[in-house]
Amino acid sequence: MKLGRILRDSLEGTVPRLVLVQPERECVIDLATAEYQRLLHTGASEEAARRLASALYPSSMSAAIAGGPTFLEAAARTASSSVENGSALLPFEQVRWFSPLDPPLMRDCLAFEQHLRNSFKGEAVPPQSLAQHYKLPLYYKGNPLTLIAHEQEVPWPDYTQRMDYELELGFVIGRAGKDLTPEQASDYLFGVTIFNDFSARDIQMQEMMGLLGPAKGKDFATALGPWITTLDELDAHNLAMIARVNGKEWSRGSSSTMMWKVEEIIAYVSKGEGVRPGELIGSGTVGLGCGLELGKLLKPGDVVELEVGGIGVLRNRMGTPAPLGWMPQQRTPATA
Amino acid sequence: MKLGRILRDSLEGTVPRLVLVQPERECVIDLATAEYQRLLHTGASEEAARRLASALYPSSMSAAIAGGPTFLEAAARTASSSVENGSALLPFEQVRWFSPLDPPLMRDCLAFEQHLRNSFKGEAVPPQSLAQHYKLPLYYKGNPLTLIAHEQEVPWPDYTQRMDYELELGFVIGRAGKDLTPEQASDYLFGVTIFNDFSARDIQMQEMMGLLGPAKGKDFATALGPWITTLDELDAHNLAMIARVNGKEWSRGSSSTMMWKVEEIIAYVSKGEGVRPGELIGSGTVGLGCGLELGKLLKPGDVVELEVGGIGVLRNRMGTPAPLGWMPQQRTPATA
Repeated sequence: MKLGRILRDSLEGTVPRLVLVQPERECVIDLATAEYQRLLHTGASEEAARRLASALYPSSMSAAIAGGPTFLEAAARTASSSVENGSALLPFEQVRWFSPLDPPLMRDCLAFEQHLRNSFKGEAVPPQSLAQHYKLPLYYKGNPLTLIAHEQEVPWPDYTQRMDYELELGFVIGRAGKDLTPEQASDYLFGVTIFNDFSARDIQMQEMMGLLGPAKGKDFATALGPWITTLDELDAHNLAMIARVNGKEWSRGSSSTMMWKVEEIIAYVSKGEGVRPGELIGSGTVGLGCGLELGKLLKPGDVVELEVGGIGVLRNRMGTPAPLGWMPQQRTPATA
Repeated sequence: MKLGRILRDSLEGTVPRLVLVQPERECVIDLATAEYQRLLHTGASEEAARRLASALYPSSMSAAIAGGPTFLEAAARTASSSVENGSALLPFEQVRWFSPLDPPLMRDCLAFEQHLRNSFKGEAVPPQSLAQHYKLPLYYKGNPLTLIAHEQEVPWPDYTQRMDYELELGFVIGRAGKDLTPEQASDYLFGVTIFNDFSARDIQMQEMMGLLGPAKGKDFATALGPWITTLDELDAHNLAMIARVNGKEWSRGSSSTMMWKVEEIIAYVSKGEGVRPGELIGSGTVGLGCGLELGKLLKPGDVVELEVGGIGVLRNRMGTPAPLGWMPQQRTPATA
């Protein structure tokens, strides 16, 4: 099943709606609208149909996933009964895509060895840094509030002149668990989406050298989508991954080259703190999956497409640099 | 005004409730219950009183703060009309504290120069790391889903033998803003709470050396509370800060020694990504505000109290180490 979110107009402004995506028919089914129509057809009152449909299919994908197996069972029933000519069915050309997920927490790993070796070989990188990544599946935490959707423009903050993309998978957690083993962890993976970890390389390097991990270097925007493919439709360990910039192929790889398997990552993440429905874990960049590894940078107006087998194509155009705003004034160390 | 959250039993399990705290009377007012009683008194029906009260005072503090000035105005009106003998008033001894905030995002800075110099002087720290912190108010992002409350036991994960506390302030954002200047930023600060950034020093060091910032070293638990004091009741730039372990003073400092002021931090954080109501920003540890700087560690069963002027005392007892679980197996680097 392919699940996403779109924006629609309502009496109270624009609202996100959960959709079931049918790429082969180039259309989506608005699940709340389709369920409302289905319930009416079974004799429910209009008020009851609205109430039940919106409880099953809230605006939040992570809230829907938290409903457990009921959610996917309901989505299958809703979609199979959807009326072809109803207002629930929208062709792709009428769709405004929205981030398919609103994760309560977002982590991003560095699980591909080739990318790790390529990006940790600079002189500025402390010699002991690379070794840590062979001991543990390390990750940083991103900003889940700045996720952008398929076809949404990428904001370009004032503090960077070195903009890059990163070709990654986004793993979506399906249920709550803690202190899992890798064997258990596979039951906690809901689905996979495409994750473009846009990176401001200049400030990112400063931040990483400060040892607190990237923040401004990543948090202006992360693209996600166009939708989530549930695990029954793909093999997360063998997904073809391709990046194109302005139509030209820049990167090609496969999830089969991950040094840390997704089950090990979920198990490690769950240690001591647990995982929860709707949490998002980035795989890290596939080998040669970013401009940094290729000696290239993005320019304003560039169109970046990430394609992953079994999911689809996530496309974003780079915006223009924001006008220069306030910046912190450098401090002088106190005399010790 | 002092605002927090407590746990109460309901027909559908235990639920968080917003409270107005009156430390001088050693009691809290359950705002939804008090507002329900106030509305009944004005002639509202029971159904309407429940509906309106729960909309004003949801379980989520960040959702309440997102209501804007309406929230604080309503809380003042609700509290002033609260019936002394009603079920809305609870003495401290009947209270089960809950984290006062459920932030959509949690950042933690390193804004005190003394702590910065003390913790970045080890041989393992790359020589260029310290300098970054004089250029920008760097921060890492924590796990807002593992916040624990006043009097809650601190879980001790299996992967650490070096447990520490950190004496910090927690700054709570009151409204949405982006690309702010420090002059504008003071209007975006809702209030201040106490932030104990418990730290597993052994794994934290491994993670920071991997350049992605701390994760497992911090994310098992962060204590917050006991409540939030709104900005009208304190001066965030001049707060006395004290830590005691098992009743003995270990740390003493003041927010006046911050190298980066809270307004600069909020302005910097807001660049390119914005801030939102209910977001939480830790100040970083005050100078000599943790065991690392004192050559000390915490033991299971230790009781840590953080006291901040104008707020109160946040008290937590350390739990016992969890039994050893699964750990990732070290990888061997591929031959290049």
